Order: sequence, then structure tokens, then C-alpha cells
Amino acid sequence: MKLSIDQPIGVFDSGMGGLTVLRALTQALPNEQFVYLGDTARLPYGSKSGSTVTRYALQAASLLVQQQIKLLVVACNTASAVALEPLRQQFAERGPESQPLPVIGVVQPGAVAACAQPAKHVWVLATESTVEGGAYAREILAQDSNKRVFSRACPLLVALAEAGRTDGPLVELALQEYLAGSGLTSPATSAASTLLLGCTHFPVFRKTLQKLVGEQTQLLDSAATTAKVVQEFLATNGLLRAAAPAVNPQPATAVQFLATDGVQRFRRVGEAFLGAPIAQVELVDL
Amino acid sequence: MKLSIDQPIGVFDSGMGGLTVLRALTQALPNEQFVYLGDTARLPYGSKSGSTVTRYALQAASLLVQQQIKLLVVACNTASAVALEPLRQQFAERGPESQPLPVIGVVQPGAVAACAQPAKHVWVLATESTVEGGAYAREILAQDSNKRVFSRACPLLVALAEAGRTDGPLVELALQEYLAGSGLTSPATSAASTLLLGCTHFPVFRKTLQKLVGEQTQLLDSAATTAKVVQEFLATNGLLRAAAPAVNPQPATAVQFLATDGVQRFRRVGEAFLGAPIAQVELVDL
Repeated sequence: MKLSIDQPIGVFDSGMGGLTVLRALTQALPNEQFVYLGDTARLPYGSKSGSTVTRYALQAASLLVQQQIKLLVVACNTASAVALEPLRQQFAERGPESQPLPVIGVVQPGAVAACAQPAKHVWVLATESTVEGGAYAREILAQDSNKRVFSRACPLLVALAEAGRTDGPLVELALQEYLAGSGLTSPATSAASTLLLGCTHFPVFRKTLQKLVGEQTQLLDSAATTAKVVQEFLATNGLLRAAAPAVNPQPATAVQFLATDGVQRFRRVGEAFLGAPIAQVELVDL
Repeated sequence: MKLSIDQPIGVFDSGMGGLTVLRALTQALPNEQFVYLGDTARLPYGSKSGSTVTRYALQAASLLVQQQIKLLVVACNTASAVALEPLRQQFAERGPESQPLPVIGVVQPGAVAACAQPAKHVWVLATESTVEGGAYAREILAQDSNKRVFSRACPLLVALAEAGRTDGPLVELALQEYLAGSGLTSPATSAASTLLLGCTHFPVFRKTLQKLVGEQTQLLDSAATTAKVVQEFLATNGLLRAAAPAVNPQPATAVQFLATDGVQRFRRVGEAFLGAPIAQVELVDL
């Protein structure tokens, strides 16, 4: 494919969790245009096998490639953990006029964020599939072999987040269970740890989590570091747009939303993830 | 298609919930053979739109039809509520040698079970999609216009059930929330009500639910009545097998399990739904 500065950035997730990454991207890159695809018909990805997640990710990416994107952001930890290399290979076609599609995931930027913290212990909350694959532990230890990484699979949190439940007794009880044994709810040990949200759905629980672990624990997600990696990549490769396109100067219309099911639900629930209203969502089939 | 007595019965669900129906079917029909298909790659169905659920149900049914089934049991309330007619139309082909595929869902049998109870009030716990479609209220009132039907969408219960969580504080808290306002947790009012489990995943919560609503409340699911409807249909149409087939006399091998993802997880978690070990699960693609 041919990459050019005026093309949009493609962002995809299993559902609405990736909107937390889109939010950071639109803030860091105000002059870019985005196409966001949520595979809501087949979510959640986190309880599914690597081969199924890879197949779904390739289908989602194909649709975004048809939209002439200049870069693909995999705003889903599960898909980033298992499908990044298959995605790069699939869209690596080269020719006289062709360039490989750049693909950026959220696991490596999340690891960068964790390694920038002084705390030796990193607690990762993630989906079953991400934890089983061990991608976070690998990435963090590759960057800093002195870290100690503990990962906890949290199979109920995506369902809670997609149901719009972000606080209240039920959410607190679920989070307490997933934090059990981490030492994070004890001030004596929690200051030595970082809590990394290894699923793009989890930042909606940030407020409730911070209440449970106390202010002394650093809560991190990969949204901001992913946006930074994307910005640096675009700048380095001459693909960063310095000013908004003349044809579409409205920030409100800078994102095109696509979903594979439940567009009304996407609009309604998605706002909690994006932190802004969602005007229109287009239903697509993969 | 051509239906004959020696063909197996096809049973399908979004995941493992339908195993609660399969359990009742194998008990009521010990001489039959079954093919069970769980669409685990795309579960849950209950938060998805009717058109998406219908599309998935048609794909699942097509695969079972290729297995030469004599009857299709839609062991999923969400699919029964929205896809029964499309399924009947899709496999209604007629010709000199051809018969329409019989399709039996779980909503109508569940309504039969509720109407057999003296209590006037029927509380239905179901998925978002089933509740939105109003299928239970329609079916119950069509059978007994004196009933009063209340339906409650329980979006977290399928996730809890598929995660193998059937009791404990978190499950109790979720169930208590979904029972709030029903009067079922108060002995004074609960005796006048029936609690109908309008999702095939929910029977795994039966013990915890009974504890919450007390012994005076009748808890119903559609598994036993569905098995009865299937038995009557087969008998009436000369399709009921009187004795086990000579080639395969082992009850343990009378069910062939198919799943679209996570066969190890299916084996492990599915036993709680089926109430029996699952020896082998074959991975299939829809």
C-alpha cells in the first residue's frame, strides 16, 4: 500500500475499551483523522483462543486498510499480545509503489510506562488470554530485567465495563478479589508497586481502583504511552500532520466510528470510555 | 432434507449454557444420539442485536444440518427469542423427498412451565436481548392472560457462569441486585411468585438463587419442559428411538460436542453445566 500524510489512522478494539486509547490519541494528535473500529459483534476477545483472536484481528485490519489508513493502532491488549506479528506479516506487501502498513500495539507501550516507574514490583491486571500468553511479563523484563512482574487474569471486568458498570459495591467486590494477594490494598507494601491496567477496558475502573489501593500506588495504563509512540513514529516517518486538513477542520468530525453490532449501545456506553459524546456510529460487517 | 429415526438431534447454544438443556434431553431421551454445538468464539449472544444473533444462529444451524440431524433444539433463550422463525424458514425446503427441519426453542417450553404454576406473578431473569424482545411476556400471556410477567435483564450473569462462578459473595451480590424490587427475597410476597430462569446459563445459579429467595419460591427453567416437548414431538412424528442403536450402545458416547473456540475451556467449565464429564470436544469453524 501507499502511505501518505493525509490518510487517517486506524484504531481497532474488540469493543469500546479501545476508546480509552483513542481519547489519548486525539489529545496528543489534534490534527489527525481517525477511523475507529469496535468488533462488538464478537467481543469479548479476552476469553478466546489466540488463533481466534488473530483471525478476528486480521479481518478487522483488512476493513481498516480498505479505508486507506496510514497506520494501524491495535488498541486491544489481547489482540496486541497475540496478533501483532500476524498483522504485520499480512500487510507487509512490498513493491515499487508499496510500503508495509505500520502496526503499533498497546502492550509494548504499557511496558514502557511500567518501566519508567521506580517501583520494582509491577502488578498487571489483564484478560485471561493476555495473562496466559505472558506478553506483559516478557515485554517488561526485556526492558528492565530487575522488575518483578505479577499478572492477574480478570475475566469479569470486560463484562462489567461493557455493561457500563464502573463503580458501586459489585465492582468494588470484583476488584478486591482481583487485587487479593497483591499487597496493593495495604499501605505498607503498595508503595513499592505499580498497578498496570493491561486491558484497554480497565481505565474506566481507575477511580474505584485508586480508592482501593490508595493514592500511594501508581496506576498506569498504556493509553498515553501508546499515543506518544504513535506520535514519534509519525514524526520520524514524515507522516505527522502539522495542521488540520482544510477540508475538515472540525475536531468533532475527526473520528469516524465503525462497529460490527449494537451501534446504539456503542453510542450510549462508549461515551464513558471516550469521555466525549459519540455522534454517529456506522454498522459494518467483517 | 430427509428425516429418519436413526439421525441425531442437533442442539445449539452460544456457549455452554445449553448444556443444561442437553442434560435434561439425555435424561429424558436415553436412546437418542446428540450433536451439541457451542458457538464459544462469539459468545455472549445476549448483549448483541437480533439481526446479529439471527445470522449466527443460521450459521450454527447450517453446520448441524450438515451432520444430518432430524431435529434442531435451539438451547439458547436469546436465539430462541429472535431467530426461531428465520431458522424454520431457512430449513423449510420441500420437495418430493424433502421434509422441513423441525426447530424447537426454549422460550415456549419455559412459558409452559411458568403457566403450570399457580402463582400469578412470574419473574423472568434473562439476557438484555431476550428482555428487550419481550418474547417471554408474549408467550406466557398467550398461554394464560391472567399472569403478570416482569422481566429483568441480567447482563453480568452469562459472564459469571462462563467464568465458572456459581456461588460466593460476588455472585450473591449480583443476584441480589437483579432480584431487587421483585419482592422475591421477602417471604411475605415471594410465595405468590414464580422465578423463571430465562437463559440456559442461569440454572448453574439455582442453589444460590434458592438460598436468596427461600424455599417457598418456585424456581423454574426451561430444560425439563423443553425435553418433554422434544420427546412428544419425536413420538408424534415417528422419530423417537425406542432402543439405543446397535452400533453405539454406550451412553457416554451418545453426545458429540462441537465448539467454535476454546475446547479445553469448554471441557473444563462445561462439566458444571452438564453435570457430567466431557471427554472430547471438536473445534469447528462457522
